[in-house]
Amino acid sequence: MIQSQEKSDRVLVRVSNLTEKKADEVVWVRARVHTSRAKGKQCFLVLRQQQFNVQALVAVGDHASKQMVKFAANINKESIVDVEGVVRKVNQKIGSCTQQDVELHVQKIYVISVAEPRLPLQLDDAIRPEVEGEEDGRATVNQDTRLDNRVIDLRTSTSQAVFRLQSGVCHLFRETLINKGFVEIQTPKIISAASEGGANVFTVSYFKNNAYLAQSPQLYKQMCICADFEKVFCIGPVFRAEDSNTHRHLTEFVGLDIEMAFNYHYHEVMEEIADTLVQIFKGLQERFQTEIQTVNKQFPCEPFKFLEPTLRLEYCEALAMLREAGIEMGDEEDLSTPNEKLLGRLVKEKYDTDFYILDKYPLAVRPFYTMPDPRNPKQSNSYDMFMRGEEILSGAQRIHDPQLLTERALHHGIDLEKIKAYIDSFRFGAPPHAGGGIGLERVTMLFLGLHNIRQTSMFPRDPKRLTP
Amino acid sequence: MIQSQEKSDRVLVRVSNLTEKKADEVVWVRARVHTSRAKGKQCFLVLRQQQFNVQALVAVGDHASKQMVKFAANINKESIVDVEGVVRKVNQKIGSCTQQDVELHVQKIYVISVAEPRLPLQLDDAIRPEVEGEEDGRATVNQDTRLDNRVIDLRTSTSQAVFRLQSGVCHLFRETLINKGFVEIQTPKIISAASEGGANVFTVSYFKNNAYLAQSPQLYKQMCICADFEKVFCIGPVFRAEDSNTHRHLTEFVGLDIEMAFNYHYHEVMEEIADTLVQIFKGLQERFQTEIQTVNKQFPCEPFKFLEPTLRLEYCEALAMLREAGIEMGDEEDLSTPNEKLLGRLVKEKYDTDFYILDKYPLAVRPFYTMPDPRNPKQSNSYDMFMRGEEILSGAQRIHDPQLLTERALHHGIDLEKIKAYIDSFRFGAPPHAGGGIGLERVTMLFLGLHNIRQTSMFPRDPKRLTP
Repeated sequence: MIQSQEKSDRVLVRVSNLTEKKADEVVWVRARVHTSRAKGKQCFLVLRQQQFNVQALVAVGDHASKQMVKFAANINKESIVDVEGVVRKVNQKIGSCTQQDVELHVQKIYVISVAEPRLPLQLDDAIRPEVEGEEDGRATVNQDTRLDNRVIDLRTSTSQAVFRLQSGVCHLFRETLINKGFVEIQTPKIISAASEGGANVFTVSYFKNNAYLAQSPQLYKQMCICADFEKVFCIGPVFRAEDSNTHRHLTEFVGLDIEMAFNYHYHEVMEEIADTLVQIFKGLQERFQTEIQTVNKQFPCEPFKFLEPTLRLEYCEALAMLREAGIEMGDEEDLSTPNEKLLGRLVKEKYDTDFYILDKYPLAVRPFYTMPDPRNPKQSNSYDMFMRGEEILSGAQRIHDPQLLTERALHHGIDLEKIKAYIDSFRFGAPPHAGGGIGLERVTMLFLGLHNIRQTSMFPRDPKRLTP
Repeated sequence: MIQSQEKSDRVLVRVSNLTEKKADEVVWVRARVHTSRAKGKQCFLVLRQQQFNVQALVAVGDHASKQMVKFAANINKESIVDVEGVVRKVNQKIGSCTQQDVELHVQKIYVISVAEPRLPLQLDDAIRPEVEGEEDGRATVNQDTRLDNRVIDLRTSTSQAVFRLQSGVCHLFRETLINKGFVEIQTPKIISAASEGGANVFTVSYFKNNAYLAQSPQLYKQMCICADFEKVFCIGPVFRAEDSNTHRHLTEFVGLDIEMAFNYHYHEVMEEIADTLVQIFKGLQERFQTEIQTVNKQFPCEPFKFLEPTLRLEYCEALAMLREAGIEMGDEEDLSTPNEKLLGRLVKEKYDTDFYILDKYPLAVRPFYTMPDPRNPKQSNSYDMFMRGEEILSGAQRIHDPQLLTERALHHGIDLEKIKAYIDSFRFGAPPHAGGGIGLERVTMLFLGLHNIRQTSMFPRDPKRLTP
């Protein structure tokens, strides 16, 4: 066991650097035993390090005894080993490894951390594409087994790629906004009152009282706008006590939130948000092509398409498209999930984009703080954004006038006492502003064309799952 | 009220851009009325935009009527106005404004958002340095008034500077770690079991069961290491149900967390963390000098000093320094807050640094998962880091062997059933690793030499405060 007994000058070479350039060099490598196969006087190991792997050969000869071959053959899969070996070119490419041109001729092998002999899931099964009807009879791993054993499931090349790309989404989001002059803020998650009406909120015991978990950072983002920060963003957990067991709902997810003061029209903000998403898509396609292709091997999918500038449709136009496709819907009716998806397909056919803005939602289906459209009292200055036909962002111009805000809250039957602090924030001069909240896991899922949000949440939380 | 009636081509000039270069130009500006002072046929306004302000003059003449002067004089402070005016050079510098060389001769003025006439606190009072004994009798604002009216308090130049710098801490932390090859992860905040023993944890009602708020992301960071991500970091809220009402405790704060696999010695990780902090300090001093100086005006303070490489002291050396200064302490006793501060002063005198590492804590005062020192069973492979004599990071090599982890948990009297999932994470091969957690608000507070953590948390949470 490495307990920091001593410092060492030994250099460990990365598996990804084992190429022909290192041929005939003696190297040390630390990696996991991915597979091992004994065959008479020799043993073939596949050594894995993150998404890279290399073949290693332990053969009876000058450097290895019969005992050593037996020892190597008996190392449990997923154990971590330190191996000293000579890099040798191979005549025939090794198709099953990422390092196809070389193999490692092992001289020494030590087990650094041993894995238990029975793995709860096999990594090779976990990255197998799911064939329609499972005709070929080879095993795949079901989702609960994956999630119950997440530490192992996250080691697959697919998981490594998904979560490296997700780290990239956060990085690109912030990089773009910092360049646009935004300030990052941190907002509290424990709040004293359920500001958005009180439904779907988790209760926390707070010393001798009750408190709640914030369903969004919206109130705090808006307070920062009223406090002259002008352009703010935050990344953090949001909590929804919804008993929804669907492919796209979680009880805890990560919100990428934006709020911004504008001069004359909320489209100034809407366009900044859409451009931020476009910069994320471009950055992912430029910097994470390897990860995208790795995920595609298991989950094949068309590349994500988008336009510049982003396509903007008004809600009434979307209604017309849906009606033309045979859907019956009222003017002030919200989109159902199937209609959202159908609309996504219609938009893709007509405009060839997987990303678009739907603007000017009916006022009736939006929260009380949404600014009504001054030209049409049944519409509002609000918008959603969609990726592959699913909503990833909801946003709007917010009402910044305490008088109008009070009227709208009363109209919605909201107890004014509960939102007093919220309304009071606007009493000392408030700039017009708009914003929106993006679901991180949905962006990753839909960009990669995955089908379940649990694939893009490392440790997902839903009504039935709180572990690991 | 701006309700996005129409888009406009009108360009709004930033107050910070109102300089001699713009002399004699007609410009539009949107800003808050910071002060107004009527004087016969004219009215002087100070217009403020974030940390910048400019003097504006409304005088009876070609462009302004008597009524307009009266109107301007009656605009409530903190209201937001749109002003059209001519930029005029002034003969004598205007000492009370950031834009000292010009003033604005107002031609038109519109109120965009009106503030209520009585402000709960005056911005000029809120940025006044607190003089010893308040001899000069001028008002300052107490902390509860500030926090109760945070939207206004955050508008001061000091608050603007503090939170812009804090945004910079997060940015520099991530920038440094992304460059070092770390992956950003998102960890759940709602957890099924209180992993660190159960004390000081908030309980959440989770549908029909109970859950808890995570006291740190540590278990999840470690699972990511066991899942081969090798180097991970995260930024997120951490929750402590401690009934501590001190200058440096919050019930919810922001953790900057790092975890990293190492090859041979945990110092590899400790040094990466210390270097990350040094990069943050350097970046702040390079990029946020204006903000540092703005805060210093209200809260004078020596510049933050640090060494490269970072000073590392062992716990026994610190004990010797304290004993030499007359403190009586046992070898396995933890540092009290006063002793921490005294040690900080002794270290500053001897080594001229405000930042150092204290390494090799007694095993007895660290959590059960801390790796014992293989050379001295009473010591451990653990460290704290200090800024201006206060702890900002606690870290260690973690035990990665399930057998030893079980033994240590039993030794601490921990119910093994409750930490089963944690221990099981190490059963399928775990690399040696170490890490640590940094308190964001503490870093900002101590870097700027502030004295209360509530000054560096936008919306602080403590046992007595849950609002706004």
